[in-house]
Amino acid sequence: MSQLIKEGDYVLLYLDRRRTYLVRIEKGKNFHTHKGFVQLENLIGKNYGIIVKSSLGVEFVVLKPLLRDYIVKSVRKTQITYPKDVALMVMFSGIGTGSRIVEAGTGTGALTTALAHCIKPEGRVYSYEIREEFLKNARKNLKRAGLIEFVELKNKDITVGIDESDVDAVILDLATPWLVVPHAYAALKPCGTLVSFSPTIDQAVKTVEALKENSFIDIETVECLMRGMQIARGKTRPHTLMTGHTGYITFARKAIMSEAQSNPSPNRQ
Amino acid sequence: MSQLIKEGDYVLLYLDRRRTYLVRIEKGKNFHTHKGFVQLENLIGKNYGIIVKSSLGVEFVVLKPLLRDYIVKSVRKTQITYPKDVALMVMFSGIGTGSRIVEAGTGTGALTTALAHCIKPEGRVYSYEIREEFLKNARKNLKRAGLIEFVELKNKDITVGIDESDVDAVILDLATPWLVVPHAYAALKPCGTLVSFSPTIDQAVKTVEALKENSFIDIETVECLMRGMQIARGKTRPHTLMTGHTGYITFARKAIMSEAQSNPSPNRQ
Amino acid sequence: MSQLIKEGDYVLLYLDRRRTYLVRIEKGKNFHTHKGFVQLENLIGKNYGIIVKSSLGVEFVVLKPLLRDYIVKSVRKTQITYPKDVALMVMFSGIGTGSRIVEAGTGTGALTTALAHCIKPEGRVYSYEIREEFLKNARKNLKRAGLIEFVELKNKDITVGIDESDVDAVILDLATPWLVVPHAYAALKPCGTLVSFSPTIDQAVKTVEALKENSFIDIETVECLMRGMQIARGKTRPHTLMTGHTGYITFARKAIMSEAQSNPSPNRQ
Amino acid sequence: MSQLIKEGDYVLLYLDRRRTYLVRIEKGKNFHTHKGFVQLENLIGKNYGIIVKSSLGVEFVVLKPLLRDYIVKSVRKTQITYPKDVALMVMFSGIGTGSRIVEAGTGTGALTTALAHCIKPEGRVYSYEIREEFLKNARKNLKRAGLIEFVELKNKDITVGIDESDVDAVILDLATPWLVVPHAYAALKPCGTLVSFSPTIDQAVKTVEALKENSFIDIETVECLMRGMQIARGKTRPHTLMTGHTGYITFARKAIMSEAQSNPSPNRQ
Repeated sequence: MSQLIKEGDYVLLYLDRRRTYLVRIEKGKNFHTHKGFVQLENLIGKNYGIIVKSSLGVEFVVLKPLLRDYIVKSVRKTQITYPKDVALMVMFSGIGTGSRIVEAGTGTGALTTALAHCIKPEGRVYSYEIREEFLKNARKNLKRAGLIEFVELKNKDITVGIDESDVDAVILDLATPWLVVPHAYAALKPCGTLVSFSPTIDQAVKTVEALKENSFIDIETVECLMRGMQIARGKTRPHTLMTGHTGYITFARKAIMSEAQSNPSPNRQ
Repeated sequence: MSQLIKEGDYVLLYLDRRRTYLVRIEKGKNFHTHKGFVQLENLIGKNYGIIVKSSLGVEFVVLKPLLRDYIVKSVRKTQITYPKDVALMVMFSGIGTGSRIVEAGTGTGALTTALAHCIKPEGRVYSYEIREEFLKNARKNLKRAGLIEFVELKNKDITVGIDESDVDAVILDLATPWLVVPHAYAALKPCGTLVSFSPTIDQAVKTVEALKENSFIDIETVECLMRGMQIARGKTRPHTLMTGHTGYITFARKAIMSEAQSNPSPNRQ
Repeated sequence: MSQLIKEGDYVLLYLDRRRTYLVRIEKGKNFHTHKGFVQLENLIGKNYGIIVKSSLGVEFVVLKPLLRDYIVKSVRKTQITYPKDVALMVMFSGIGTGSRIVEAGTGTGALTTALAHCIKPEGRVYSYEIREEFLKNARKNLKRAGLIEFVELKNKDITVGIDESDVDAVILDLATPWLVVPHAYAALKPCGTLVSFSPTIDQAVKTVEALKENSFIDIETVECLMRGMQIARGKTRPHTLMTGHTGYITFARKAIMSEAQSNPSPNRQ
Repeated sequence: MSQLIKEGDYVLLYLDRRRTYLVRIEKGKNFHTHKGFVQLENLIGKNYGIIVKSSLGVEFVVLKPLLRDYIVKSVRKTQITYPKDVALMVMFSGIGTGSRIVEAGTGTGALTTALAHCIKPEGRVYSYEIREEFLKNARKNLKRAGLIEFVELKNKDITVGIDESDVDAVILDLATPWLVVPHAYAALKPCGTLVSFSPTIDQAVKTVEALKENSFIDIETVECLMRGMQIARGKTRPHTLMTGHTGYITFARKAIMSEAQSNPSPNRQ
């Protein structure tokens, strides 16, 4: 059966694609917009997906927030994290339910949210961040998304070292990923993955160099451009404006270079 | 503890980025390449990530296959499915562990593999395909990836109807997605998502029109371009060749248009 | 010898890449900016490329406007014309000094300016536009660029017919290019080129269909994405924002389908 | 009147978009293809644009080569030059009929061909190349395009110095453009333009740094992606394969930094 809306839930009030609002359902609380207010209490016990009218008669659809909504609506103290990049980082990392992941830096917690969504309920995200106010903010975002219980937020400098070991993946979005590479090698299980996101080319170059020096293999750097389409019969065209750049994503796997295993030599056969 | 390689496992033998081989570990079996053969039996009980030498002394790294490897290495009877598109479709769909999903067509099973990976162990993928030989092939690919138990392969025409109800997402990659839209609306739980992949613009237009006619909202169509970088200090540049187009991804959510909920009218207050 | 600045010249006052001003040199005239004013008369007899200080001591470089500046600075009554598209259209058209060209619609005259620049001094641009106020505005832009003498502005509907014949190229940027295709075929010299710019896919499709029906060959449609780079040692990256779409450019050449010339048949030899 | 085909002309025999042949018309010569041969002599006196049948009855259209054809068909001893990049470089440079241009390196002469096409008949291209065999090959390509008379090919190292002065533009496509920047500054007329093409990011960075150090302003680096469309009603889509990268184009203008001109100071007024 479908879940009904209950007190304490977050809902996404949808006016149109550009105007959506992530709101917590509380008794006695009204949500005010320039299109009138919505009495949130009235939504309790209703189905997600229904239409509600504001005090001015404007219709909003009451949506259940998806992972992407939590990412995009993350309260920010730093730059935006794009769902397209999060999607690729998760795919490249190979993680899934049950995975144990080290992440740094936590930032807004947007990427942390996506990672927690993927590894729950048995997995765990260890997320490093040196700026305490960022951790506070990230905690709020993770709570709102209902994922805080799968995350350990750590107010530590990951460039100094990683506490965990035998983890499945190390996911990096910080200014100096290359400084983390040796620690990541130590923390990863054999064949574990490292994924790093960096806005500048120079960061990508330094990271790839560090990966090569630290016995990572299968190294790949890509960028991803997403372009929206304006779909209307007879007038279809790509949107005029687009985000031209967010960052480069670098992927690698840990190899165990010291343990080479020989086949019997050909002349012995 | 890390998993050790055992009989029956699939491993990815890695020579370089362009030459990797997905191989099943069997006793008494050799894997032959133009660089000599590898005695697979010798790998049993070893760590993933180690190096093995072929009979000609060439080194291969023995990797644990990731989701992406299974997607790329899917035995194909149809066109390739790109990990970038799979990553975006999964992200847009909002699915996660425990989700119940309808998919069509199964095709090679590459997208099915990704969906099963995301929803396991409690969720389920119901995958429709009309061509029986495709189902057979997909079954093999899913078995190889160890995910067949989370998938129900159905030799049925989804444009005729969907058996399931109250599902979290409907994921489409077939020639006529617009014919499935009304059935998807019926099968989806309130606020459920539909994601459709189509190579041509006209398919995207028809799908968007069907979505609008069937009470879907938050409709968005995008395309995603991924470009690889050649990283080397002093010589860094994007790769010369790139895949210029795979397809358009359309996303939408089911709204319940009939159940509009009114606030108290303004003049009553 | 280099040209010196003289009365009546247009100069481009350059503060930085985002703040440039196309200004006519007149005696007794000041150019006012938020950075103070510049006495334009003082520039007469000076070299292009020098620095001038405003009344507030802010430095402007006095540049000689290039073709691209005239295109970008066109006084507009319609959407912007992008130099990248103009550059490709000129290249594809194969025109050069001496070419005779039919263009429609004139619009702002930005494309007209580029065409006149390419065909001067012996060539001629016949530019059709149905909206008289656009022609007035285009005339101003062409005068400012010093190119009006190479252009014949025609207040006529090109979808009804083209007066000229034996022209080298027909260049189209209007809502219904497909309606012009038969007239373009009649007006072009054998092997002449047609280049059409359209924002929507549907316009491109209709135009290509009309070209195929009217004995054009070598038909090609492309889109061009230009991305700016932010260059700074250690911080180099593409710009965040980019124009994701302007339009599709379609190219074709006129073939003379009726005059097939036979070689002697093989068995006669 | 249209030109008729005459002996010594180059024609483009067009089978389809992928199969075109640049051929010189000579008496008694046959052009052999896998679709039979064409007697070139028979084309003399005919119109461009006509269809000719090969000895096997296959139809070719006899096209007059455009600038773009000469660029694409340049006999190559080095990498390909893309018309899209040539088009942008010409547009950014601001050149036109009558311009005097310095270019290096000559390479295949493809870019030289485009520059000569733009500046003829009164302008001149001074093209530097250190590899003598490249100059020989470029000379052939320029002759074929009928443009050799507007070009001076120089077997000299431009990184050592530029002989010319007061030129309108310096156009660079060589491995170390930054070494040319000081010479370019000396050779350019005030406000002249420099345009440089480089495949790697590091080359672009070094060039931009040299430009900043040498009183160039209005510096801009871009890359241009061109994507072909497959146009067919109901099946329209971008082509699958595309050239993902050719190079970065850097543009700048020479400013005269020493000659700052003051307005009267504000308090004197």
